[in-house]
Amino acid sequence: MHGNPLFQPPYYGAAYYPEDWPLEQIDDDIALMKEAGMNVMRVGEFAWARMEPREGEYDFDWLHLVVEKLGAAGIATILGTPTCTPPAWLTTKHPEVLFQLPSGVRVGHGGRRHTCPNNPLYRDYCAKITRKMAEAFGRDDRIIGWQIDNEVAPHGDTSGFSRSCCCPVCHEKFQAFMKDRFGSIEALNDAWCLHLWSQQYDGFDQLPTHSTVVWHHPSLLAAWSEFNSRSYVDFVKAQADILHELTDHPIGTDMMPFLDVDHYAMNKNLDIVQYNYYFYHEHFRDASFWLDFMRPVQARPFWVTECGTGWSGSVATTGYSDPGFCRANSWLPIALGAEATLYWLWRTHRTGHELLHGSVVSSQGRPLHMFNEVKDIGRGFRAAAGFINGTRPEKTGVAIHLSHLSHTIMSTQPHVHGLHYATEVQNRVYQPLIRHQWRPDVIDTSVDLDGFRVLFSPMVPSLDHHGLRDRLQAWIEAGGTWVAGPFTDIRDAHGAKFTESPFGVLEAWGGIFCPFTVPGHPRDFNLRWHDLRESEGSLIYDAFEPRGAEALATYMDNELAGLAAVTRVPMGRGQVVVLGTMLREADLVALMNTLAADADVTPVARASENLLVVPRSGEAGRGAVLVETHNESAMCTLPEKGVNLLNGEKVDGTLELPPYGVAVIQYGV
Amino acid sequence: MHGNPLFQPPYYGAAYYPEDWPLEQIDDDIALMKEAGMNVMRVGEFAWARMEPREGEYDFDWLHLVVEKLGAAGIATILGTPTCTPPAWLTTKHPEVLFQLPSGVRVGHGGRRHTCPNNPLYRDYCAKITRKMAEAFGRDDRIIGWQIDNEVAPHGDTSGFSRSCCCPVCHEKFQAFMKDRFGSIEALNDAWCLHLWSQQYDGFDQLPTHSTVVWHHPSLLAAWSEFNSRSYVDFVKAQADILHELTDHPIGTDMMPFLDVDHYAMNKNLDIVQYNYYFYHEHFRDASFWLDFMRPVQARPFWVTECGTGWSGSVATTGYSDPGFCRANSWLPIALGAEATLYWLWRTHRTGHELLHGSVVSSQGRPLHMFNEVKDIGRGFRAAAGFINGTRPEKTGVAIHLSHLSHTIMSTQPHVHGLHYATEVQNRVYQPLIRHQWRPDVIDTSVDLDGFRVLFSPMVPSLDHHGLRDRLQAWIEAGGTWVAGPFTDIRDAHGAKFTESPFGVLEAWGGIFCPFTVPGHPRDFNLRWHDLRESEGSLIYDAFEPRGAEALATYMDNELAGLAAVTRVPMGRGQVVVLGTMLREADLVALMNTLAADADVTPVARASENLLVVPRSGEAGRGAVLVETHNESAMCTLPEKGVNLLNGEKVDGTLELPPYGVAVIQYGV
Amino acid sequence: MHGNPLFQPPYYGAAYYPEDWPLEQIDDDIALMKEAGMNVMRVGEFAWARMEPREGEYDFDWLHLVVEKLGAAGIATILGTPTCTPPAWLTTKHPEVLFQLPSGVRVGHGGRRHTCPNNPLYRDYCAKITRKMAEAFGRDDRIIGWQIDNEVAPHGDTSGFSRSCCCPVCHEKFQAFMKDRFGSIEALNDAWCLHLWSQQYDGFDQLPTHSTVVWHHPSLLAAWSEFNSRSYVDFVKAQADILHELTDHPIGTDMMPFLDVDHYAMNKNLDIVQYNYYFYHEHFRDASFWLDFMRPVQARPFWVTECGTGWSGSVATTGYSDPGFCRANSWLPIALGAEATLYWLWRTHRTGHELLHGSVVSSQGRPLHMFNEVKDIGRGFRAAAGFINGTRPEKTGVAIHLSHLSHTIMSTQPHVHGLHYATEVQNRVYQPLIRHQWRPDVIDTSVDLDGFRVLFSPMVPSLDHHGLRDRLQAWIEAGGTWVAGPFTDIRDAHGAKFTESPFGVLEAWGGIFCPFTVPGHPRDFNLRWHDLRESEGSLIYDAFEPRGAEALATYMDNELAGLAAVTRVPMGRGQVVVLGTMLREADLVALMNTLAADADVTPVARASENLLVVPRSGEAGRGAVLVETHNESAMCTLPEKGVNLLNGEKVDGTLELPPYGVAVIQYGV
Repeated sequence: MHGNPLFQPPYYGAAYYPEDWPLEQIDDDIALMKEAGMNVMRVGEFAWARMEPREGEYDFDWLHLVVEKLGAAGIATILGTPTCTPPAWLTTKHPEVLFQLPSGVRVGHGGRRHTCPNNPLYRDYCAKITRKMAEAFGRDDRIIGWQIDNEVAPHGDTSGFSRSCCCPVCHEKFQAFMKDRFGSIEALNDAWCLHLWSQQYDGFDQLPTHSTVVWHHPSLLAAWSEFNSRSYVDFVKAQADILHELTDHPIGTDMMPFLDVDHYAMNKNLDIVQYNYYFYHEHFRDASFWLDFMRPVQARPFWVTECGTGWSGSVATTGYSDPGFCRANSWLPIALGAEATLYWLWRTHRTGHELLHGSVVSSQGRPLHMFNEVKDIGRGFRAAAGFINGTRPEKTGVAIHLSHLSHTIMSTQPHVHGLHYATEVQNRVYQPLIRHQWRPDVIDTSVDLDGFRVLFSPMVPSLDHHGLRDRLQAWIEAGGTWVAGPFTDIRDAHGAKFTESPFGVLEAWGGIFCPFTVPGHPRDFNLRWHDLRESEGSLIYDAFEPRGAEALATYMDNELAGLAAVTRVPMGRGQVVVLGTMLREADLVALMNTLAADADVTPVARASENLLVVPRSGEAGRGAVLVETHNESAMCTLPEKGVNLLNGEKVDGTLELPPYGVAVIQYGV
Repeated sequence: MHGNPLFQPPYYGAAYYPEDWPLEQIDDDIALMKEAGMNVMRVGEFAWARMEPREGEYDFDWLHLVVEKLGAAGIATILGTPTCTPPAWLTTKHPEVLFQLPSGVRVGHGGRRHTCPNNPLYRDYCAKITRKMAEAFGRDDRIIGWQIDNEVAPHGDTSGFSRSCCCPVCHEKFQAFMKDRFGSIEALNDAWCLHLWSQQYDGFDQLPTHSTVVWHHPSLLAAWSEFNSRSYVDFVKAQADILHELTDHPIGTDMMPFLDVDHYAMNKNLDIVQYNYYFYHEHFRDASFWLDFMRPVQARPFWVTECGTGWSGSVATTGYSDPGFCRANSWLPIALGAEATLYWLWRTHRTGHELLHGSVVSSQGRPLHMFNEVKDIGRGFRAAAGFINGTRPEKTGVAIHLSHLSHTIMSTQPHVHGLHYATEVQNRVYQPLIRHQWRPDVIDTSVDLDGFRVLFSPMVPSLDHHGLRDRLQAWIEAGGTWVAGPFTDIRDAHGAKFTESPFGVLEAWGGIFCPFTVPGHPRDFNLRWHDLRESEGSLIYDAFEPRGAEALATYMDNELAGLAAVTRVPMGRGQVVVLGTMLREADLVALMNTLAADADVTPVARASENLLVVPRSGEAGRGAVLVETHNESAMCTLPEKGVNLLNGEKVDGTLELPPYGVAVIQYGV
Repeated sequence: MHGNPLFQPPYYGAAYYPEDWPLEQIDDDIALMKEAGMNVMRVGEFAWARMEPREGEYDFDWLHLVVEKLGAAGIATILGTPTCTPPAWLTTKHPEVLFQLPSGVRVGHGGRRHTCPNNPLYRDYCAKITRKMAEAFGRDDRIIGWQIDNEVAPHGDTSGFSRSCCCPVCHEKFQAFMKDRFGSIEALNDAWCLHLWSQQYDGFDQLPTHSTVVWHHPSLLAAWSEFNSRSYVDFVKAQADILHELTDHPIGTDMMPFLDVDHYAMNKNLDIVQYNYYFYHEHFRDASFWLDFMRPVQARPFWVTECGTGWSGSVATTGYSDPGFCRANSWLPIALGAEATLYWLWRTHRTGHELLHGSVVSSQGRPLHMFNEVKDIGRGFRAAAGFINGTRPEKTGVAIHLSHLSHTIMSTQPHVHGLHYATEVQNRVYQPLIRHQWRPDVIDTSVDLDGFRVLFSPMVPSLDHHGLRDRLQAWIEAGGTWVAGPFTDIRDAHGAKFTESPFGVLEAWGGIFCPFTVPGHPRDFNLRWHDLRESEGSLIYDAFEPRGAEALATYMDNELAGLAAVTRVPMGRGQVVVLGTMLREADLVALMNTLAADADVTPVARASENLLVVPRSGEAGRGAVLVETHNESAMCTLPEKGVNLLNGEKVDGTLELPPYGVAVIQYGV
């Protein structure tokens, strides 16, 4: 329970920008928020110029008023530090805090997220405004949490310029980062094999950024990418340290469904995982992947700090979503372990950027067409609050690796044209599993493996991070079932290949020898499974000679004929399954079923493929949250009698849900 | 009648570049021009280096000779000022007159249209050469007009760099332009709602250009775009002022079918509208849209200063056009109110840029394959001259708004991905109307509405320019039928939304209340019309509750069901029709037919959809020009007997035209 | 025979990078090389930093060891100078040796091919390391040849930056090149017709590079392109001069299948043509075109210095090639006149660039899946060595022009959107001929025409280079059959059109008059042939009135109707055929058959279209090499009995080959 008993989860609300409107309007807004059933607003994230209109002159009165008015209405506040939008007085006085393009040009005022994350002067200014805010609001019990900055990320954008800063400060810090990692330049030259192409450096001060417009070494690009992630982790940590000093409110930073910044490294310094996402139409079915990834980052329930009521849009809209979308989209995070769903945004802006973005009420304060759904969601959150707050999604023992470092390596060297790492993991492994009602955690490679019984590690090129290799060994020997590959264990910590084997330990652990590997494009190769089913692989073809392992599937064509494609071998009390190729959906599901018996895991439900069923249990009992994600009808056979807390109806046997339908079932009541 | 009785319209000719050829060749050229039936040549536009080979040394002898030789052959001259191609001595001495890219790089010598429109030094040089030309030719009665510069426009191009100059002069002038518009920086901050994102400026000197490579505020981009238009208007006006001082010839500047520069603002300072266009193959049917837009800019007949005989081409050709194209393309402007058709160009260049462009005669002086058509057009112009010169296209009372400022707003915020403002107005409103033989003027929002009876205003986001709101009100109340929307009256003068209503006055005038708006993509919604026809809308869905208005069409689906899509209400002696969605062709035409009865307007002809019929009348009687634009056969039922002036045949009843056929019918003779 | 009798062709080997691996590993590598049947390795090309780890400190011991160990195993060495990858000490000390982007930015260390070809300081450094290498290895008889630098080329790449250096040195040298060519600036102004657009220059010092970001003059772009080719020719020549001083080994430079650098100009200073190519899957059938182009560059058999065993790849692979591909791909150059086939690369790298590239053995030293083919190829090379070394491909008397200068002009002015010169020559002329077993040489316009009887010159815009016009005249009059056009003889030496005729001499020689030309897009026109067959042309339509010529094909449509499309006329003892349009395959083949009788040339075989049959003869007798290139079965009717040297089988009558099959037939044994 939150410190202030007035503000209890599930939190339901939106981003609110009172600085854009006459302050008097707040009462009208609050009346609508109450009607919508909301109990939290996220405020302040971009309002630096309003808080500090001139250097050193602070004005928090308006913000106190907002917090107070909201609080008085039973609406809690999440406060954002405004450090991704510095005021013009700052950027005019110190243009060097703005980031520098690879061409050497500094960007100018007028956007957001356009500052150097490493500039010490900028860090000072950020520290100052953060401290002032913390002093002003750190003890206010109407605040339930803090958000640091907004959507920190070094990735490029579609306008053709990279968001990773190339200024001298970043350049030097990158060189220092490399020196810290390698100790000597010889070590770096060796690790990256810079004897080739006469690339070797005589000192760290020769190390360029990615801005030098040449055909770059993949390890340099990966290191630069890693450096950028760390820069933002450090940037956020600096503010977190100040906030932790001055408040007990939980601190977080709202991040997006991208792997450019390491979510785990970032949240290690923070109290609460905050997550923004926007998936509409047929992409909505992808949303659960990232929620299943955010949940395991911390034990504490996470917050969805931003999602859409119906569409996104900067200068053009992404378009209409069908009835029920808002309900399904708002419940999905709650089902999957969040304790907050906030929309971006409460009220459409009056002008400027993102004016075409969906909201709860229009610029004129008129509720949008889905307002009835919004109210219904608010009622539902309250009706199910006891059950939701008193239960957690059950651990199923199944996990899939999705790692920042794998992303970094596979982005710089995708191996196959057009291969996008996270998409591949999602479409080829995660989606087949969840369609058959397996409910995996999606975890970083740094996560402790205790409690998992089956682990898929597709495209984890290197096991040499986070002590993964040793932890895996212990876990397998203790009984774990590890499904490795393809593209797994093929690189050392610095992205180099191994020289004795194409794999670090996969041949040894997997009881196999890999004479050669063949790329998939432009044709695929046929497989015959141990049960005589025939199918085909995809993407890549590692050929295996079993050396102790059992061949679960064997290649049928060309040079590959007779060699194994999928193998299994016991290891200690566990087993190692190696995938030489990316499996088709039916094969992956069949394999999972085969492994399930030994590993003692089971699907969470008998239900339509389009239905997400999340069993939950805890002090408040047992039950499940059901969310339909494909905009189609769905069915679920319930394991026992219960009550749908959203409408009070008793349910038993087969439950039907309409498109985008949601149900919260408590069993045994 | 032109001052010199020897040179009378319709003018028929081409662009002629004697500076590219031995001067002796002119006699051969003139012989061919005479054979072609031409009576005007456009000369001089790029020949600065020939006129002023070294700074301050002028040589007009060659140009006098050209004018004289042409004149002696009965061929008038249009003189161009050469200010879009400065000589190398100028750009070498003053590289700062060349435009600066967003990256800060100055472009170099060797192209065209690559100068800063605001650089005062460049303005001086342009003034000097213009004055010298005017002194030399201002009283020459073989000159029938002047063209200032060539195709002025700040728009980007396909090489990926923007043509809008970002030099310090432009930057400062933009800041001054903003100061002039807003008075105080607070006013700008308020108008653009810069309280969001801490964007507010402390002074105008902080205002950037669009070159700062950040995610820009749409109002800044729109203002920058507007500034660029004004820069070119000023640039041209400076030369016009000099010319007006020294000559009585009509002055113009040849512009393209783009809205980046305001054609109305530009031509306010000029005497004659000059227009260049290139539409071939299936795009030829788009040509009339822009001609219907150029005609109303001034009362005086306009000039087509450039069009193609068959194809365009810089380093590659756009390809072959079928027989008859040249005829239809040359007559089309004349039909629609021009008094001149000139080709670009007379003789294909010898080398260099645009070498693949079509012409009348080849680099070798050999007539191209359409020369028989060219001669036939010349004969036709002469045969119909009396009728053409003595009549004007009849006003039909129907108009469509197409506005520079709407373009500016809709370019920076297209609302729907891929929406292109002018294309949408043309394809969704103009083309349906003309296919059913409505003959609208296409007018800027600044145009006086007297004389119009039905006005379509699609996608006019703001009525707060040119006093449009008040003028509309008076015009409607006096009997006008206004068809507004979608995307109309949704922004104030600075691009901000209204805060009381989604529209400025559309709810009040239209007798409606708009509870919400839904975007179209990825699905469209069904409509039921008052006559029970069913169809569907597109692009955007404003939902209306009638508050006094009649619902002409009602939505059938989802949250929209039962709400009105199209409404009508009387206002004074007129009426207001509001479109909540972009109508399909059949619906728009049905609506037009419905409104026509009240508004007392009628189609101009009973004819095939592919046939353009332009009724004309005046001192020379009544008649019509017919041009087939789809390369298909066409039919027209004539309202009375007449004579086809092109072949002398009497016509009565139904007239058939071949593909690309042209007829000039004089009635009652 | 090579100086050292131990190392005899055909050479079979790969690129070897011992600097990337522990030196001790070389014995394992050599054992595998021997198993593969290889007798040559290419070493050293990028290893500058290993040879000169600090300025002036040289270490060749490791390289001596490599050469010695290889030599002792019967494996010869080709040594590469490492000048496309300068060490970091050099680029740090002298960043001005790196190339400068059009934006003015210098690129940085970390890639390859990123140096200015003209920088004198860099030339000095290159000379120094080359001289040192030559002193160390110039007399080593285990070396069979030298490769200078690697894949020199100024062309752009896909990252969006141009590889042509825009530094002050290049800029000044370009101006000097132009001064040298034209003598006076007036001559340049005249040649390029710079009177247009006021472009004319007052001096050569005003001449820009292509970097000035304006709409450039095509002749400037063509001259800049030509300058770049010469820069690289000079760059390589400087090293060749040093090597020629210090060694008798043959010197070459390995080039790619692109025309940006003039292969003939380059190889004039060199002893041996070296060629790198990568064609897989359906592109493999294109490979012979470039081999037929490389063969005639020098009389001496050329070397394929690089090709792939199965796929290419930098950060992603191009994918799998079917069984037999490696065999066909390795034999193809030998069949067509090479004496060496080397793979890139022997052993896959450990990390870094091009890590996804195919090889012979993996990073772990494991043979790839095609290793059995590799061994089989090695055996075959040895089995057929006597025949291959003792014969040359027979001259067939048929040739096709493919010229660097034509490419330069057609690249800057493609005339038709999307037209790619070399692709067009290949697909429209070369492939139709070879599918019908004509075996043309593909020759530059500089090549002596003696010995050819039929010559196709498609898209040779200018005959004013290499004295081609005069040489053609003499050759035709002596009996040659010249098939000219389309796009041939339409420009003078500087890219300008002719002013008296659309052609230089084609009207006079061809007995035709061309009243006009019509572009093809978007429709094509029908032809009727003299034998009454009907078909259609493509791309371009020159219309001809015969003035002494016979019309072989006549247009049927529109303005073209009745005019000739293809004409033939005797000239001296030869004849001139003019193509007004690009012929369809069947028409070109029919035309070739028609001409063959007069010209006394015949197809080289009766065989499937997918089979390449290369008759060879010489001191070792007569025979043919057969290579299947479409991955389909093939048949050939042998003209006489013989033996397939690859398997010792006697062959007679019809020979069948499997997909990618290869046979080496010696007749009469």
